[in-house]
Order: sequence, then structure tokens, then C-alpha cells
Amino acid sequence: MEKPSIPRGTRDFGPREMARRNYIFDIIRQSFARYGYLPIETPAMEHLKTLMGKYGEEGDRLIFKILSRGEKLSKVLDAGSDISATDLSEEALRYDLTVPFARFVVQHRNEISFPFKRYQIQPVWRADRPQKGRYREFYQCDADVVGTDSLLCEVELIQLYDEVLSELRLPGFTIKLNNRKILTGIAEVCGYPDRVVDITVAIDKLDKVGEDEVAKELQEKGLSNEAIITIQPLFNLQGTNTDKLDQLKSFLSKSEIGIKGIEELEFILNYIDKLGLKKGRLEFDATLARGLNYYTGAIFEVKAHDVKIGSICGGGRYDNLTGVFGMEGVSGVGISFGADRIYDVLEELSLFPEFLAVNTQVLFTNFGEAETDFALKILKQTRESGINAEIYPSAEKMKKQFSYADSKEIPFVAIVGAEELKSKTVSLKDMKTGNQVNLTPEELITRLKK
Amino acid sequence: MEKPSIPRGTRDFGPREMARRNYIFDIIRQSFARYGYLPIETPAMEHLKTLMGKYGEEGDRLIFKILSRGEKLSKVLDAGSDISATDLSEEALRYDLTVPFARFVVQHRNEISFPFKRYQIQPVWRADRPQKGRYREFYQCDADVVGTDSLLCEVELIQLYDEVLSELRLPGFTIKLNNRKILTGIAEVCGYPDRVVDITVAIDKLDKVGEDEVAKELQEKGLSNEAIITIQPLFNLQGTNTDKLDQLKSFLSKSEIGIKGIEELEFILNYIDKLGLKKGRLEFDATLARGLNYYTGAIFEVKAHDVKIGSICGGGRYDNLTGVFGMEGVSGVGISFGADRIYDVLEELSLFPEFLAVNTQVLFTNFGEAETDFALKILKQTRESGINAEIYPSAEKMKKQFSYADSKEIPFVAIVGAEELKSKTVSLKDMKTGNQVNLTPEELITRLKK
Repeated sequence: MEKPSIPRGTRDFGPREMARRNYIFDIIRQSFARYGYLPIETPAMEHLKTLMGKYGEEGDRLIFKILSRGEKLSKVLDAGSDISATDLSEEALRYDLTVPFARFVVQHRNEISFPFKRYQIQPVWRADRPQKGRYREFYQCDADVVGTDSLLCEVELIQLYDEVLSELRLPGFTIKLNNRKILTGIAEVCGYPDRVVDITVAIDKLDKVGEDEVAKELQEKGLSNEAIITIQPLFNLQGTNTDKLDQLKSFLSKSEIGIKGIEELEFILNYIDKLGLKKGRLEFDATLARGLNYYTGAIFEVKAHDVKIGSICGGGRYDNLTGVFGMEGVSGVGISFGADRIYDVLEELSLFPEFLAVNTQVLFTNFGEAETDFALKILKQTRESGINAEIYPSAEKMKKQFSYADSKEIPFVAIVGAEELKSKTVSLKDMKTGNQVNLTPEELITRLKK
Repeated sequence: MEKPSIPRGTRDFGPREMARRNYIFDIIRQSFARYGYLPIETPAMEHLKTLMGKYGEEGDRLIFKILSRGEKLSKVLDAGSDISATDLSEEALRYDLTVPFARFVVQHRNEISFPFKRYQIQPVWRADRPQKGRYREFYQCDADVVGTDSLLCEVELIQLYDEVLSELRLPGFTIKLNNRKILTGIAEVCGYPDRVVDITVAIDKLDKVGEDEVAKELQEKGLSNEAIITIQPLFNLQGTNTDKLDQLKSFLSKSEIGIKGIEELEFILNYIDKLGLKKGRLEFDATLARGLNYYTGAIFEVKAHDVKIGSICGGGRYDNLTGVFGMEGVSGVGISFGADRIYDVLEELSLFPEFLAVNTQVLFTNFGEAETDFALKILKQTRESGINAEIYPSAEKMKKQFSYADSKEIPFVAIVGAEELKSKTVSLKDMKTGNQVNLTPEELITRLKK
């Protein structure tokens, strides 16, 4: 018989990985709540039409589609030739949390009080080619506020990045900041106001391919040499955030929208300056572009220091996310934590705490019926005191019972043998030090509660 | 433009429902851990072949299948006529947590130390006809232990039902208990040893359709009148659990397996008797059958008192769940909490606590730039003290800011106006009583921490 397996790009998580993943999720969740974001959940499936056309052509292809059932399917198949994927499917798995959130806001607009601060931690599915660090099923952790264009939201979201990543004990990380209006301004100043997307897409690659390749791409996209020479100095702005903004200010002086973008950033930087960050470094980067086309204001990206792992968080402001579902004029801003990449960073830098909550604290041995009778009563008291505890289910050899405790990393074994039964005590063995002490049931509980 | 919607039988959960659902999940999760069960997660998608044939014909139809992509799909469609669903799909959404768990155990057998105690709380998907209380996406909460046939596991799982449901403050509930071996014994004694499944399926309906209909179904299935008359007294066993078992013992005296079933139940009942239950009533019910065919030993079902809602939990022992994936002889036993039904019970009986954790504790008002400058600093300290807090993002009319706090059920509003700015204080309004006090930032934090 074939060994069972799971679909490519998906993963099983065992207890150890779960403890580590939940450590990350719990910190994110608690911080979201501390900033007034409340949880929502949306279904794994959305109508296919809700998702199609929202992520570009490539995205449409990568959406997992659910096969229609029963009569609907028969009808399509009977119709014969020229059947395409969209004929065979009416529902699909969510591709991100942003479009379902926009759909949620429009669908429930009458029950929601704006500004609406929500967070959402759920898996998403993409039929991407799996590779290291890229999965077909992965979690997104998003916080968004919609229904206000106040820049205090941007300030708060930067604090939130800082809080979460500091709490996860990352030794250092840089929060990169830019504004789409600045990119629009740049396109205007170099004479191609209608080519913002092309310019943005090219500049977005600067980090990966370098200045020459970006210049080449701009050339291929039809920008004049003059325009490219005008843009290039922006790739290497020097000095503090203020220095860079000052240089850019004179460059963009003729672009109203460009200047607006600079003012927005100044507001944000000024507040963060006053309030301070714990461990994060906030850096203005005029070349930060972020691929997603719905961003219209501030854009964010976070990179961890000391590891060669791409950005671990992203985000930005969008002015019309709900427009596509018929609700215009709702501005919002959101951030997203890449839980899988954060996991990799914590692992690579050995930052996971040694003891992660939810393990069993004590294993009671099983020596047979009489001893078990006694052990079960103490086990019950132990659990009632809030201590995670279990008993080995059958009277196997001690070696086997101890190796079970070992493999499950249970820190204490409570031995209940004939001697202990007689004296109504328990011998508690510390699995790390090997020390063993004889205790009354009450003493046992007190000891374990520490 | 069409109002956006979600697929039939699926649900959005807003912040209020999320808080209530998480209240249930948290109690289940904590209790699972207290009994030594550790979490795992499996992918939403499994290979179609992993799932097909495991849930009966009806189940096969109700599995949500993922449409194949790209070349694979084109190939099938090009092949032309006589295409069926299984040609168009290689992956599918999980239908329950039990089959993926069996697959997990076999796939990871070399990393797992047995007995393996795991819990799993994840959504499952079924293309069932949606109706009240029945959804196409819903969560299952399962705890199983595999790799041991010790009946102490059954004892512990009954304690676990009792613990979770008592902690959820259910005023009363009955844990029904039976053993598949008893049903097998009954089939033997009435002369149809090879008709256990037919007899089980018929008896399973006793609760819903009554004695006469069950007798009718048995007749239709070809049982002799004599056999039916032999069975019928079992529908109405009277007295305590011990009384019932005694009556059954003489009935089954000639069936070895039937007597084995009774002995197993006596072991379980005896231990529960010694250890006691908090609020649950444990009741032996010889007619309890549970539909699923993989059960081979004890079977459980839990019903809440005072509500007309079906069973809220189920479970049982299976001797060969992993056999279908090539790993024989692994006995296991598990239980499942029906979170959606438990939600309905708690709602109907008004058992949800009034205050459910994770809401914002205090909203800071926004009177404009100068006040906000000051407010943001106190807000930061408040959050650093672990208090969930937020500021209204723009300087709207006070009425609007207060109604925001109202609709989000935020219990306190911290007013920071010109007066407060001058005296470096905050006026804290209790939204329930209307009382307002003037406090220093430190006093504010102390007050809110209470």
C-alpha cells in the first residue's frame, strides 16, 4: 500500500510546531487587541466572482477553485466542448484576507460602526509553485482600520509592528516607509504621469536586481534616457529620514501630489519621533513600492536584521478597496504579519522560548490496578488545581513509561508504586536533574504549581 | 451592483460572535491540555483518494472537490466525453478530522511516540443541504488517544466531557454510554450475527422515530418477528446502570463478545463511580448506536438538558482506523465536541458570561492636535500596562466619538480636552454608570487595571 501523503505545498503541524506557531499567533493576537482591533472570521470559500479579477491575471490562475456538484456539474459536462475552469466552478478558496474583508465590510455595512478596526488570522490558499518558504496553504495575520483617513492610524500601525516584533524578542528590525503619492509625484516630475504603475513595478525590484537592471527595465518600458537620469538619484538618497525628505521635497516641488505624500510622511515620522519605538528602526525609503496596486498612500515593509529572509511584514493605505463591491469613498489602512517567515526568523536566530506553555507537566506511572486506583485520585486533584497531567494508560515496563515522558518532554514523573501506595505518597522525579523526592499529594500539587 | 454575499451554508463571524466562539474553544483547548492532549493541525486539503470511500457513498458525494488546474485540467477536458468529478479533481477539502488524523498517524508513525494523545480544532467542509444548525463549513473539536486499548482512556474521556461542559456552566447534561460489542452480542443472540450494521442503523433511530418504526425497519431488513420480539425488551431497560447491565448480562449470556462489552462498561462505570463527575450524569443506554461504522468498543453521546437540541458531543473506540492506510492493529478512542451546537445551547440558556475578554477597555477622545499629542503619550503608557486601549482617529464631534464607544461596548472613555491638557489629567467616564472622575495618568492606569 502506498504511504499516505498530503498535497504539495501543504503541511502537517505536530505538537512542537503548533506550540511555536501559537506562541507567535498569541503575541500578535494580544497586541492587536491591545490596540483596539477586534477579531472577525470569514469562510474559507467565497463566490468565485468575488475573487476573480482582484489579483491580476496571474492571481486569477492561482485561485483554488471548488468543483461544482451534482446537476450543475452534469449540465456543464453535457454541454460538451470548450469548457473552462470558470464553467466548472462557482466557489473558490480565499486567496488573501483583504478582498474577503472588503466584501465583509460592504455586506455588513449596516451592522458595522465606523471607523472599523478588525483583525483576522486565518489560512489562505494559492496554487503557486511550492518552494522553500512558499506554501500553498499559509496563514495571514492582518489588522486593518477602515472608514477614516486619519494618519494617526499609520502611526499606530507602526507602533504595532514595533510592539509585536519587540515582544517576539527580535534583536533588530527595520520598518521601511514610503508613500504611493511620492511615487506618483516622481512619475509626474520625470514626464510620465500616466506610467506610475510601470515605474513602480520597475523600482520595486531595486532591492533584488540592482540599479542598472531597474534602469534597463525603465528603458524597455519606453522611458526616455533623460527621465531615467532624472529618477536615478532617488535610488541613493543619503542621510537621516529628514535629510532624505528634504532632498525629495525640492525634487518634487512641482508635483502637488508628491508634496502631499511628503507631508503625510512628515506627520507620521514626527509622531513616531515623539512617541519612540522599542526596538524597531523606522526608515524612509523612496524606492519602496510594494506590488499591490490598491495602495494609494503610506506603504510599509519590515525586514529582520541578521537573517537572509525577505520582508516579514507589509502594509499600506488604500482609498477605495470596497469600491469594487459598490461602496465608494471608504479609506483604510492595514498591516500584515507573515507568520511563516517570522517562524523561520525565530528559528534561525534561536529566539523561541525553551518552555512553551501547553505541555503536560507531570506523568503518573501505572503499576497496575491497586496503584492506579490511588493514582487516579491524585491525578484528579492535580488537574483540578489547573496542572496539565496524565497517567500512562497501561501497566507497561517502567522503562517504556519513562521514555514516553522523555519523548513528550514532560518535565516530571510521579511514581506511584507499592511503597507509595502503602504510605499514601508519591515519588516525584525531576526528569532534567534526575532528583527524586517523596511527597504527600498536597505537597505534590504545591510543588508543581510553582 | 449586486450586493456581495457568501456561499450557502457558510458564515461570517463578527467580533461579538468571535468572542463567544473563542470562549468555547478556549475552555475546550485548556481542558484538552489539562488531560495531556497536545494540538496538531492538518491541511484543509487532502488528496481526494485519502478521503474517498471513507464516509460511505453519501459521504463521497458530499466531499468538496478542488478543481484540477492548468495542463491536468486541459488534458481531461480534451479527452472529451464521460468525464466525472473524480477526473476533474485530485484534491479535496477535509470532511472530518478523524480520517486526516489517521492519515497523520500513519504518515508520521516514526516521529510519534505512542500512546499518542492529540487534539485538533479545525473547520471541516461538507456539501450538505444547509438548514438550521447545519452548515457547509463548521468547526470540529476532537481529542483522541491511539496506540493503547486501555479502558482508562474511556474513563478519562468521560471526565473530559464532564470537565468541559461543567466549566461552560451547563446546568445539566447526560453522557450516554454503550458498547458496540453489546450491539454485536444482541445481533448474535437474536440469530443474525452478520447483520450487526443493519440492526445498529435501525436501533440508532429509536430516539427520533420510536419503537414501532424501528421494529418496522428491522422487519423490512428481513429480520424474523421472533428476532424482533427478542430484541424489543432491550429498548426499555429500567433502573440504574447496574440494573440495566444485569438484565442485559443474562440476555447476552451466550454471546462471548456481548459479555466482553458488558465487562468493559462495568470497568468504566466502576471507575467513574469512584472518581465522581461534576455535573454530568452518566447513563448506560443499550440502544445507543452512533452511525459511524468504524467504532468497535465503547460509544458516547452527550445531550444537554432543558433544550431541544440534538447531541452536542460524540465519540467512541475504534480498533482499526489506520488499517485503511496500511497500519494495522492500532486501537484508539476519541471524543468530539460540537462547537456550533454548544454555542446554540449556551445562547438559548443565556449562559455566555456578560464580559468576554478581548474588548477595548478605554477609548481616548480626540479634540485635535494639541490634545492628541498629550493623549497619545498616555495611550502608550496605558497599552504598555497591558490594557486594551485606543484613540478616536480624528477630531469629530464628541457625540460621534461617544456613540462609537457605545456601539463597540467599550466600558470607559478617557476625555482629554483643553482643561485636562492644562492640568495634565484625564477625565474618565464610566459608560455604564455615567460617572466621571478626574485622574492623573498614573491614577487612570491603576483604575483601569482593576
